[in-house]
Formats: sequence, C-alpha cells, structure tokens
Amino acid sequence: MVEEYVTAIPKKSEDFSEWYVQIVRRAELADYTPVKGCMVYRPYGYAIWENIQEALDRRLKATGHQNAYFPLFIPESFLAKEAEHVKGFAPEVAWVTQGGGEELEERLAIRPTSEAIIMHMYAKWVRSYRDLPILINLWNNVVRWEKVTRLFLRTTEFLWQEGHTAHRTSEDAMEETLRIAEIYRDLVENELAIPVYIGRKSEQEKFAGAQATFALEALMPDGKALQAGTTHFFGQNFAKAFEIKYLDSDGEQKYAWTTSWGVSTRLIGGLIMVHGDDAGLILPPRVAPIQVVVVPIFYGNEQEEVIRKAHELAQMLIGAGLRVKVDDRDEYTPGWKFSEWELRGAPLRLELGPRDLAASSAILVRRDNRKKEKVGWDALISRIPVALEEIQSSLFQRAKEFRTANTRRTTDYVQFQRVMEEQRGFLLAPWCGEGACEDRIKADTTATVRCLTTDTAAGATCLCCDRPAAHWAYFAKSY
Amino acid sequence: MVEEYVTAIPKKSEDFSEWYVQIVRRAELADYTPVKGCMVYRPYGYAIWENIQEALDRRLKATGHQNAYFPLFIPESFLAKEAEHVKGFAPEVAWVTQGGGEELEERLAIRPTSEAIIMHMYAKWVRSYRDLPILINLWNNVVRWEKVTRLFLRTTEFLWQEGHTAHRTSEDAMEETLRIAEIYRDLVENELAIPVYIGRKSEQEKFAGAQATFALEALMPDGKALQAGTTHFFGQNFAKAFEIKYLDSDGEQKYAWTTSWGVSTRLIGGLIMVHGDDAGLILPPRVAPIQVVVVPIFYGNEQEEVIRKAHELAQMLIGAGLRVKVDDRDEYTPGWKFSEWELRGAPLRLELGPRDLAASSAILVRRDNRKKEKVGWDALISRIPVALEEIQSSLFQRAKEFRTANTRRTTDYVQFQRVMEEQRGFLLAPWCGEGACEDRIKADTTATVRCLTTDTAAGATCLCCDRPAAHWAYFAKSY
Repeated sequence: MVEEYVTAIPKKSEDFSEWYVQIVRRAELADYTPVKGCMVYRPYGYAIWENIQEALDRRLKATGHQNAYFPLFIPESFLAKEAEHVKGFAPEVAWVTQGGGEELEERLAIRPTSEAIIMHMYAKWVRSYRDLPILINLWNNVVRWEKVTRLFLRTTEFLWQEGHTAHRTSEDAMEETLRIAEIYRDLVENELAIPVYIGRKSEQEKFAGAQATFALEALMPDGKALQAGTTHFFGQNFAKAFEIKYLDSDGEQKYAWTTSWGVSTRLIGGLIMVHGDDAGLILPPRVAPIQVVVVPIFYGNEQEEVIRKAHELAQMLIGAGLRVKVDDRDEYTPGWKFSEWELRGAPLRLELGPRDLAASSAILVRRDNRKKEKVGWDALISRIPVALEEIQSSLFQRAKEFRTANTRRTTDYVQFQRVMEEQRGFLLAPWCGEGACEDRIKADTTATVRCLTTDTAAGATCLCCDRPAAHWAYFAKSY
Repeated sequence: MVEEYVTAIPKKSEDFSEWYVQIVRRAELADYTPVKGCMVYRPYGYAIWENIQEALDRRLKATGHQNAYFPLFIPESFLAKEAEHVKGFAPEVAWVTQGGGEELEERLAIRPTSEAIIMHMYAKWVRSYRDLPILINLWNNVVRWEKVTRLFLRTTEFLWQEGHTAHRTSEDAMEETLRIAEIYRDLVENELAIPVYIGRKSEQEKFAGAQATFALEALMPDGKALQAGTTHFFGQNFAKAFEIKYLDSDGEQKYAWTTSWGVSTRLIGGLIMVHGDDAGLILPPRVAPIQVVVVPIFYGNEQEEVIRKAHELAQMLIGAGLRVKVDDRDEYTPGWKFSEWELRGAPLRLELGPRDLAASSAILVRRDNRKKEKVGWDALISRIPVALEEIQSSLFQRAKEFRTANTRRTTDYVQFQRVMEEQRGFLLAPWCGEGACEDRIKADTTATVRCLTTDTAAGATCLCCDRPAAHWAYFAKSY
C-alpha cells in the first residue's frame, strides 16, 4: 500500500501534466483547498519559498532596497487612475463590497499588484530630489481571479515580491529596471539552476501601464516557456497619474520616473518541472529545505547504535551550516525511505548501516544521477558541500543543454509552424514588430513572442510578412 | 523650519496620545493611507517587524514548528462551522462578493484568523497518531473591520503570525499552549525589553471558540494594559467541528486536540509607548534597525577625511555583525542629525570630528540616558556590543520598575475604583470569577480582567460581591 503510494506516479515523459500534479501533492509541497483557485503552501513547499526569499532579499538589500508593507485593499477610484493599468487588471479583480456588517460606499479591490496605492503614497513622501530614489520592496500576497488554475503556476491568490521604485531621471529608472533583471537572472540561474533568456516584451505582452517590460523566460521539459520574472519601466506614466513630483536642484518641479518588478512562487513550479524525473523531485541544493537526508539502516539490536551515530553525524553537518534531517522512523523500511526522499527531491542521501559503522564510513548517494560513494566520517564535512555544489552545477548544465537543444533559429514560417507543432521549444525568428503578425503567429501556432533580443535584425525579413524585420525574437508556447 | 519639524512634537508626559501618533509618523515607522483603517508599514517600521520575525521564527523552528501558507479567503460556510468562533468574528469580517466580473455564489471572508480553513485541511492530512503533532505557523496579513483605529495598535488590516497545532492528547495540546506562552514571554521581555504578566483569560475575554486563552499583558506609560500576545487551548472544539480524527495505536478513532496562538505588529506599538521619551523613540538594541548611527562632524576641508574614517569605522562594526549607518548627508548640521536620530531612536550615536580624528577616538552617546563616553577606535568593536546590551538591559529594568510601581494589590472596591480613576496601572484583586461582577467592574471603572493569576484565593472575598474569591486577577484599563 505504502510502496504503491510512492510508485504509482506516472512517468514524467509519458504524462507530464499528471506527473506534475502528483509530485506536488505527494511530496507535500502544496495541496488543493476548498477555496476556488487557491492552494495551501505546505511546509515543505513553503520552505523552498523561504530559501528563495532569503536569497533574493539578500541581493535586494545589498543593492539598497528596503522592505515595507502597503494595504491589501485598493479603493476602486485609485485603481482607475492609470488608464492602461485598470484596463489590464480590472477584469481579474476580487472585490470587497461589505465590511463590518455594512455595504461599502466604494468597492475595494484585493490588490492584483500594488502600483495604485504605492504611487499615491510616494506622491506624499517625495518633495525634493533628495528624497529620490525610493527603493522599496514588498513580500506579500496578491489575488487575480483566474479561470483555470494550476498548483504554483497559476492560482487565484499567490505569494510574490513586488518592488516599486521612483527615480530622478529616466536613465536612473531604466538602470534600475535592468539591474533588477540581472539580479533575477542571478537568482534563477545560480540558486534555482534554471537558465533564462532575458529580453524586452512586445507591446502586446508588456505589463498594463508600462512603457517597457523585460522578462525572464525559462524552458520547461514539455517545450513550453515559463515567464519566471518581469521588470517594468513606467517612464512617467504613473508619476503623472498620481502626481509624483519633486523639486529638482535647478528649482524646477519635475515628475519622477518609476519602475516595478516581481517574481512569485511560480518559480517553485518552474524548478519542479525543470529538474524532476520519474522518481520525483530533484531540488537544487541551494534552495532545498533538506539538503542531506540521513537514513539509518538496522536490523534488530544494532538499531540504537546506528541511530545514535546517524544523529551525531547529522549534528556535525548541521553545525557546518547544512540542512540535514535524520529519518529514523521505525515504521518504514530503508527502501521505502529511499523512495520517499527521492520523491521529495533531497539532493543527497547518506546511508548508515552496521557495516558502515564498523568501517567508520557512510554511503553518500546523489539524487540527480544516483551515483554512490563511500565516504569516511571525517571526510563528510568537506565532501558533502562539494557534492552539493556538483549537483547544483550539474542540474544547471543539464537544463542548459536541454534549452540549447531546444532553441532553434529559423526564418521560414513553414518550418516555424512545424517545429511549434512537433518539438516546441524556443524559436528565434525575425519579426517586423507589428501586432498583426504577432496575432497571426499566435492564431496559427498558439506561440507568442516571449521576448525580444538585442541582436541586429538588419537585412532580415519578418517571419510572417514581407516587411523588414525589426527584431530577432524568441517565440514559444507558454504557461 | 527643519529644526522645528523635529522639536514641535508634544511632550510624552503632556499629550501621550498625540506624542505617539507624531512619533510614529515623523520617525517614518508608518503612515496613514486613503484606505480606511489601513496603514502603510514604512521601511523603518517594517525593519523592526523583520527583526521581531527573525527572533520569533528562530525560537519557533527550534521547537519543531514549520512555516506554511493558507488561503486569504475563507468561504462563509467554513467560518460558520464552529459556532462560538463565527459569533465572535462575523461582525468584523470584510466580505468578497465579486470576482472576475461576476457575483460569487458564496461570500468569501477575508481571514480574520485562519482556524476555519486550516482545521479543514488538517482533517484531510491527519490519518494516524503518527501524523501528530502538526506544528504549523503562518506569517501573514489578516483583516478585522475596526471602527476606531490607531497606528500599529488597532488597524483593519495587520501583519501577524498565527500558529495552529494539532495533538494526540489533551496534555500535549495544553503543553504546547503554555510552551508558546513562554516563547512569547522570552521574545517580548528579552528582545523588546517589555515586561509582561502571563495568565489565563476570563470566560468573557477568551478567544471565540477556545476552551482557555492565555495572554501576555504589558503596562503602558499611561497606565493602560496592552495585550501583547495570546495562546489558545481549543480542547476538541475545532477537531469536532471539522472532523479532525486519527487512528490511535489502540485501534480507536479519536478526535485531535488543537491550539492556536499569535502575536502581531501591535508589539511595535507597545515598544514605542513603553520606551520612548520626549525626544522620540528609544529602540531596544536587539530589534533596532539601526543600532549605531555614525555622525561625522566637519567644517570645510576636514570633510573628506572625517567621512572616510566614519565609513571605515562603520564597515568594521558591520563586519562584526552590528547594524550601522553613517549619516553623511551634507544638507544637515550635526545638531540636526543628533535630533533626528534621537527621534528615530537609534540606541547609540557615534560622533566623529576632527579632534577625534587626531586622538584616534570617537564619542559614543547612549540614546536612553544621553551619557557620553570617549572610546578609542581599537576599543569600539568590544565596547559597542557591551554598550548595546547595557541599553537593552537598562530599558527592561526601567520598564519593570515602572510596572512594579504601578501594580497595586487591593481587596477594597472603593480603593480599586479610586486607583483606576487616578493612577490606573494593574490592580491585583480577588474575584469570584462570575461575569456579573466582571460586568459591574467594567461598568464602574472601564477596567477589565486582563488575566488570572495562579495565586491561591483561599480565604479571600470577591472585590465586588461577598462571595468567596476564585482567583486573584490582574485588572486594568486596556488598549
């Protein structure tokens, strides 16, 4: 019964979608709730988020950002102040209409994003050029009413961070927009081991109210792209809508320049899909809640000594800053525990049995390639951090090779359509930049412009029409 | 103008209420928003919360608790499952009635607290006694529709943590309830330097749905008590309402025993009130976002050298794990900066001028008593941590002395009423335990039972009626 519970998961290669859902639920990362479209982040899944938060928060603070918190509610009249913004978000808003037993005079939106309330406050706080820049980040929950939801990838409520900054000049704001894109790339590639393409979004795909949106796009094993983060340059759109003005050193009143940017718990969905295999999750060591699981193996009377030693080794590793758990439950066999911790994606397993005890060693097993290695107790403290880095690096390399193999360059629309139909992946193709071609490509293939490159398109012709290309762009189907 | 801005704050002793609001806003801890009853936690205020979170999170994880996240929305039918619970919370709920452009079939409560959704999920997750205990904590936002609000102390939306645990036995659940009370006491007394009384709440004052509530009660300078945290023993109330059952080792199906507990950003309001003085905030060093502010003092051409050395000393202190800021703004005088950082409550100020440069020393000034001390550069790294601990301990002692001086024992109702009218503070008095006397005391004095003691009441007579006393209880007016 119990063995079956672990082994009944469909193969990743055969039913990716069902594999994903079962992994998420059986590894206890998340669960469905009776609240439509909303999920529970269970402790094991939330711990991954805490590790991501820690890694990003450190980078944001090192670049001068501070955390703050703004209200969950945005009065309807505030949401409406920036025309494009409200057009983009109003259809997916959840509205509070009653409070304290009474009907409200004005509906309150549950924030789908917080520009509207934050810009209002910035307008109060900014007086002089000395008050700029404002570099604020929020870790919070947002709500977007979704018709079709998917654990971690698209839910009505989700956890994220949203940064909102105000600057003195256009250059400062653009520099911030791109600095954050680079921080995100560093986070996603070096902590989550997911390679990303970064580029500007098309006019159709940009954020509601932005002048320019830059996105991180990652490739999933089913050949679809996942947008892993976005950073927006607003120009003076919001500053004008919300009257964020400052007195410059030249004595002139000027509008500020603003940005916003965010990554969400969707990143967890990405790492599950990118790294997992038929046996379950494979968590990149830097964000794994448990980096090493110690499994004591005993039959009868060695039990006490083996368990004692397992805890002793674990304490030594914890003392060195590693995240370690001893699975000393007596109701499961070692084999069952191996399967469970493979399912849950612990990067390293340390097996300790009576023979190991006699040899003052233990068996170290890598989750990603299952390679086994006998390591003396004294060597564990130096070997394990290295092994974790090997896994981290190997996961990234594997993902990068997969992306390379699935990024194709084409100028031919027939080939483009065939690849989108058969292999999917990223297609790098020249595009005139017009919405009409974008629409036609989408209608023909369901693929969209994921992001533009900065490669020169001089001499190239649009994939779809006969006009000169404006950009080489990455196209893909997407989540 | 600028000097006036800092000095125009009313004296704490003369207009406590206005002093509080102005300190909160001018120190940039928080600000009002156009969203009724909701405030912004500005970076300096939020950073205090981050330090409190870090201190509590560490204690909770060390005792086996894990963080998770549950939905913001609670369908009305779930909130209604525990009769007392819904009666207590329904009047202050904010309701979502529209989402994605449509009227919802069932209203969704914005969580005022999450028992109703969490207990539902626990019922799905718990099968056997081996699944217990579940020890989960959430850091999130909650909404309670308040008529009268006050920055940090009572707002419609606020940040807090809520822990929810399920246990195999009544003893285990009660042990958890009291363990958390002790963790909270440790947090509030040792990190925030606020002494607290802990005790059980009266039947009237307990949490809606609890069998027993234990509270931490702190004394504010105006003689009113502030409830600083609560921890609830639910018995099997919620387990029965939500069908949380487990198969015990004896083969019987049994209901679990549950608890919940929380502290909120209200703690920040408490520390502002308890420690501040006429010049502004005094932040306990362990939670102060900036523990040491370095103020370089220069006139003309020493500027560069003084600022360079200020940053060098700051870097040395930051390297030792201290939170340090150099205020090298050139638009303000040193005197203005001294006032501003006193207002903002930085525990230590380090002044560095040309004469200090010549002497290889600096002047260290304590915020709490303004004592100055000349310290050689080499000695800073050892002296400053000690000075911070001296301040921490001195703030706690001062608060404790104030509480001792304002905790009075009485058995006489006339005296009780006079003290409540004139000095306020905690009044320790014998009480029969009946709601009728509690109501009368409240009607006569506006004071309530803050918590019960475990002192024996044998032989004592109720303050208010002639029946034998059941408890010695702490009474106070409260926030």
